[in-house]
Amino acid sequence: MNIKINENFKNIKETYLFSDIAKRVNAYKAANPGADVIRLGIGDVTLPLAPAVVSAMTGAAAEMGSKETFRGYPPEYGHEFLREAVASHYSSMGVSVPSSSVFISDGAKSDIGNIVDILGDNEIIIPDPVYPVYVDSNLMSGHRITLVPGSSDNGFLPLPSSLKGTVSGAVIYICSPNNPTGAVYSAEGLTEWVSFALKTGSLIIFDAAYEAFITEDVPHTIYEIPGAGSCAIEVSSFSKFAGFTGTRCGWTIVPDGLEASGVKLSKLWARRQATKFNGVSYPVQRAAEAALSPEGLKQCRANIEYYRANASLIASLMRSKNIYFTGGTNSPYIWLRCPGNMSGWEFFDLLLNRYQIVGTPGEGFGESGNGYFRITSFGSREATEQACARLADL
Amino acid sequence: MNIKINENFKNIKETYLFSDIAKRVNAYKAANPGADVIRLGIGDVTLPLAPAVVSAMTGAAAEMGSKETFRGYPPEYGHEFLREAVASHYSSMGVSVPSSSVFISDGAKSDIGNIVDILGDNEIIIPDPVYPVYVDSNLMSGHRITLVPGSSDNGFLPLPSSLKGTVSGAVIYICSPNNPTGAVYSAEGLTEWVSFALKTGSLIIFDAAYEAFITEDVPHTIYEIPGAGSCAIEVSSFSKFAGFTGTRCGWTIVPDGLEASGVKLSKLWARRQATKFNGVSYPVQRAAEAALSPEGLKQCRANIEYYRANASLIASLMRSKNIYFTGGTNSPYIWLRCPGNMSGWEFFDLLLNRYQIVGTPGEGFGESGNGYFRITSFGSREATEQACARLADL
Repeated sequence: MNIKINENFKNIKETYLFSDIAKRVNAYKAANPGADVIRLGIGDVTLPLAPAVVSAMTGAAAEMGSKETFRGYPPEYGHEFLREAVASHYSSMGVSVPSSSVFISDGAKSDIGNIVDILGDNEIIIPDPVYPVYVDSNLMSGHRITLVPGSSDNGFLPLPSSLKGTVSGAVIYICSPNNPTGAVYSAEGLTEWVSFALKTGSLIIFDAAYEAFITEDVPHTIYEIPGAGSCAIEVSSFSKFAGFTGTRCGWTIVPDGLEASGVKLSKLWARRQATKFNGVSYPVQRAAEAALSPEGLKQCRANIEYYRANASLIASLMRSKNIYFTGGTNSPYIWLRCPGNMSGWEFFDLLLNRYQIVGTPGEGFGESGNGYFRITSFGSREATEQACARLADL
Repeated sequence: MNIKINENFKNIKETYLFSDIAKRVNAYKAANPGADVIRLGIGDVTLPLAPAVVSAMTGAAAEMGSKETFRGYPPEYGHEFLREAVASHYSSMGVSVPSSSVFISDGAKSDIGNIVDILGDNEIIIPDPVYPVYVDSNLMSGHRITLVPGSSDNGFLPLPSSLKGTVSGAVIYICSPNNPTGAVYSAEGLTEWVSFALKTGSLIIFDAAYEAFITEDVPHTIYEIPGAGSCAIEVSSFSKFAGFTGTRCGWTIVPDGLEASGVKLSKLWARRQATKFNGVSYPVQRAAEAALSPEGLKQCRANIEYYRANASLIASLMRSKNIYFTGGTNSPYIWLRCPGNMSGWEFFDLLLNRYQIVGTPGEGFGESGNGYFRITSFGSREATEQACARLADL
């Protein structure tokens, strides 16, 4: 064909991280058929959906089978019952978000990728290491990316003061609690970013997907920071909070106070969604609503507690071995410095061959991930305990 | 904020069609509180989901509540069971589509909107009147659009011979059976478009969302036309075929033979979806699979038959009144020329005020829709019969 393709796709690195991991694990298992390999690599939940959620979803699916209760096209921005449930969730965190600023979607990944549609060619500022979608979705649009390195010096929580040169009108991605590092910004840290955004006329895209894992006194939402309503979009998800990775529902908050070139961003996002999206499945929206009900919250939090106890076990082990790490307290992830100056892949091979444990090399999350390693707490308690026991002689 | 927005949004016309319709209907009902208004305007289904579909969806929702059967992140391109069910569906239509070319999504609208991501700045060719998403999604990317007018002269089935000037490497949108006109291309008509695309190195994006309504001997899929595998992407949906407007599932076929700038389009689309999409809800995919099972197909086809009988009633009335129309045979839509040279809005007011019937003015679908009107067959049998009875004196 003679058509022009989007040439920016040629600038996106092919990532073979998870297929490379699978290849090494498969080769090991082929050579060691009896080995009991424990997988603590993936960022996917394993506990089933909460009973209140399942009950709501099966009930809504049954409603779709009856003429009286059948539902056709959902509103593109979400059913009002769910937009209001999300708004109430923000109330319970002490911030006021009107339901009209809540846009329901099939997941945070879609929104983070699609938000690029409404923006022009701005400088993109992204802390590194990082969830690859921030980088790749901007590369697809040919945007210029500035990475802000995380390191043990800043506890993998880089601040705007580390940026060189003048910034004006940038788009800044912040994920807190962070994937992959598990590090979480304090109110002071987020205040620095919000002040910087306000001063430079920049937009923050705040990824709160891991909010439910917070235990300490740190912000659950960017809107706890004064001024964020004038500079920040927040994207969040039911995936980790309610185990919706296979059920698919998320939301994005676009406050009415966000304006650029004389246009409200909420109006642009509404238009983008009305044009290229047709809303979320009704049974899924009812399931999401149930996750935010008192009963659902209690059940979902019990699941989070389970993962958090796993994270504590791994964090304790790291402490006992004097291994530097972030996360494990407000996050399902433990991000550790590989012992003996090993690279992430060297440590991967060591864990697999000597201990039959699979994790994720930090290199997969960007250059600042070199020499680091991510272990997740989404395995079963037994598997996590056994992994810790095996690592006693690390 | 100093950030640049996507300035192309300023070129998209605000559409108030459906809100204008709602305003006029509400005003009428306020002035005539006892009036029994029949709504034949919307393109949304009204019959409940088929029992086989509901049973599969509730069963899968229950699976998500048990540790043994819980499912996490779905594959970004769809569960293999559904990709294979769609591939088999194509087999039953007599064309061979490997499951690896099937990309499952949350609906045709998403895919039609998002496909623009992988393409460069090409000439866009769109028959008019038209489903507005083709136009608006391309305006958002600043693409140059050439509309090909439909009219009673070409039966609202314009052919490439009506294009002026030289075309090279264009992107051509074709919807057949068409929304809003209900007109359907014959094999000869589609062959002209495919030959034109092959000759000019163009890409066809074929929207087959209304395929299930076909009764006559016309192509159900663009891949019935020789050569289409080298020039056409097909987008389709469970929305109209299985009543999934509120359940949300669709698919896109990107054949391996599509290549531009030395890159396979299937690879670009796979990359786009893996970056900005996380797959479709597991219970929804099981529901969609059930719609394609022998039992599901039988039940879904009974629903289509119900709508088709409604369409026949309206089409018979038009014939008896000697009103020119397209559709009604292979489509749930009847697209009629307004009597007495009325504009679509004049006819709208006449139908509402004299007959208490709501339809959609053709102006809402583009300039070539002026003086035309869309009536849908998605109402109940009783409502459709009553509407026809009221219109006996039209």
